Amino acid sequence: MDFSPFANRNVLITGGLGFIGSNLAIRCVALGSRVTILTRSLGKMFNIEPVKDSARIVVVDLSRSADAIAALREAALGQDYIFHLAAQTSHIESMRDPFGDLEANCGVTLGLLEACRELASGAAIVMPGTVTQVGRVKEIPVGENLPDWPLSLYEAHKLACEKYLFIYHQSYGLKTTTLRLANVFGERQQANNPRRGILNFMLRRAMAGEPLTIYEPGDFIRDYSYVQNVLDALLLAAASPNTAGQAYVFGSGVGLKFYEMIDQLTQAVRDTVGAEAEVRRVPFPPGERSMDAGDFVADNRKFCAHTGWFPRVSFADGLRRTIRFYQDHLAEYPREN
Amino acid sequence: MDFSPFANRNVLITGGLGFIGSNLAIRCVALGSRVTILTRSLGKMFNIEPVKDSARIVVVDLSRSADAIAALREAALGQDYIFHLAAQTSHIESMRDPFGDLEANCGVTLGLLEACRELASGAAIVMPGTVTQVGRVKEIPVGENLPDWPLSLYEAHKLACEKYLFIYHQSYGLKTTTLRLANVFGERQQANNPRRGILNFMLRRAMAGEPLTIYEPGDFIRDYSYVQNVLDALLLAAASPNTAGQAYVFGSGVGLKFYEMIDQLTQAVRDTVGAEAEVRRVPFPPGERSMDAGDFVADNRKFCAHTGWFPRVSFADGLRRTIRFYQDHLAEYPREN
Repeated sequence: MDFSPFANRNVLITGGLGFIGSNLAIRCVALGSRVTILTRSLGKMFNIEPVKDSARIVVVDLSRSADAIAALREAALGQDYIFHLAAQTSHIESMRDPFGDLEANCGVTLGLLEACRELASGAAIVMPGTVTQVGRVKEIPVGENLPDWPLSLYEAHKLACEKYLFIYHQSYGLKTTTLRLANVFGERQQANNPRRGILNFMLRRAMAGEPLTIYEPGDFIRDYSYVQNVLDALLLAAASPNTAGQAYVFGSGVGLKFYEMIDQLTQAVRDTVGAEAEVRRVPFPPGERSMDAGDFVADNRKFCAHTGWFPRVSFADGLRRTIRFYQDHLAEYPREN
Repeated sequence: MDFSPFANRNVLITGGLGFIGSNLAIRCVALGSRVTILTRSLGKMFNIEPVKDSARIVVVDLSRSADAIAALREAALGQDYIFHLAAQTSHIESMRDPFGDLEANCGVTLGLLEACRELASGAAIVMPGTVTQVGRVKEIPVGENLPDWPLSLYEAHKLACEKYLFIYHQSYGLKTTTLRLANVFGERQQANNPRRGILNFMLRRAMAGEPLTIYEPGDFIRDYSYVQNVLDALLLAAASPNTAGQAYVFGSGVGLKFYEMIDQLTQAVRDTVGAEAEVRRVPFPPGERSMDAGDFVADNRKFCAHTGWFPRVSFADGLRRTIRFYQDHLAEYPREN
């Protein structure tokens, strides 16, 4: 995997203080890129602590207001690589505020693409999607060949954004790529909300000496990707000549049952922190809505074939690295009240 | 096919002065429905001439403005059947004004569904989509099992709207159905724009004594549906208990090569008007963008199985009826200047 294309190049990251965006900003600075971050607020500045003096940070609430369009145009100008990570990512919030989600996802993505069409037509543009765009699936692993029946407006709007990227490639020749990401975990993720990342949530509990609860049978399968492997994928998606106009399903390609993930997580906590996490297996609570999305494993073969990506960090090492990060910085990622 | 469910029921038609909407309004009045039409303007009042005193007409430019949300809420209240035909339907215009298309298609459809969720949760809601949402296809006929790669923002937004209907069924139990329609032709279609309906455009030329041009080889295959058969489908989609949350590909199920369609059209003009249309076969003009969308035939078997729909009017009869309509009313459907 060759990351030299990023040396001395201009990189724009929207949502650059978020979980993936901040890790990407740190990586790009290390690769020698000139990094510009667009962020809605400075609330998560800790995420880019290592590069806070190296990256240019622009605070703007991206929307379709004239200010934001101007900000997107100004930001796009002269960029070589654009990672569009700004998004409203809560499916619950999308159902609560349909028009807000439409704006934050579809409106902003359209605004960025319109700016790129005019001012950065040579830039490579990469956007993450979510594997849940496909909706319920009957078989795993899941590749790119299925019709999509998203179950929330968030997912419907991310689906539309993916189509925008395709259309702007087809119509205007922009080099656009979407990666539908499976569960990503790792350093700098908010660890206070199970809906944001169940693995990090459980990991924080284990490190804080809180018990981990498995609702029986806890055998649903998920594909957990370590964030540094995901960064490799995003960078290759941007740099590879084969990815123009493509949308890929991306994950580790490995499925773990929920209790298997918890086993490995408690093992990693034991190895790293020396603490023994308590695991409680309880009957599935009546009345609790079941996680009826079924099993999921990403079929990442198309992406691997197009880019040469492979997982440089094992799942166990990813867990250990994440634990070490939170050992040092857990106070910055507090429990939700 | 049983249309008795529409007698003495309340029917809302958004975009009810348009091609399909006006024919549907006339049909519903004939079936004994109380019809409310939402329309952006009264410019096409001629389309509902036969029912202009029977239908309630509300003029409103649907958008997300407070007025339009209020209008949608007021209109949805008490409806039994809602046909959401209002849309921005030009793919060229969607590329020219991405945000306007987002608003006119996604914004308005979300607004309607939000209104229905609160005020008309028992109504059956039917929306047409377009078969071109799927993008380029390798094989015909085309059913519901393919991933979608729309080639314009209009199609991407109609795709998102289709997903909205599915989501509002899944999450809130609304009875929603989408029919992705193939080329529809028939009375009351604007006949001045080949992009709006190539068959009606050619038909108007033939009736006006203008030559019909076929770019060689002219063998691309399309599925042409007569509007009265499409109305049957829309009504069954609304009345059938099997269609909740479904999206169907809908067309005649019969593919015609372009020159075959022209042959039948000139035959119908000869039979009906007694005029001989001149057909010119010319080499494909260099520089003209080819119609690279490939062949298309709708696989309508799922819809037929769920609803019992069948084509009551043959293609040849549909042509003849359309010609007779324009014989009487061609002045109302002028050539574009």
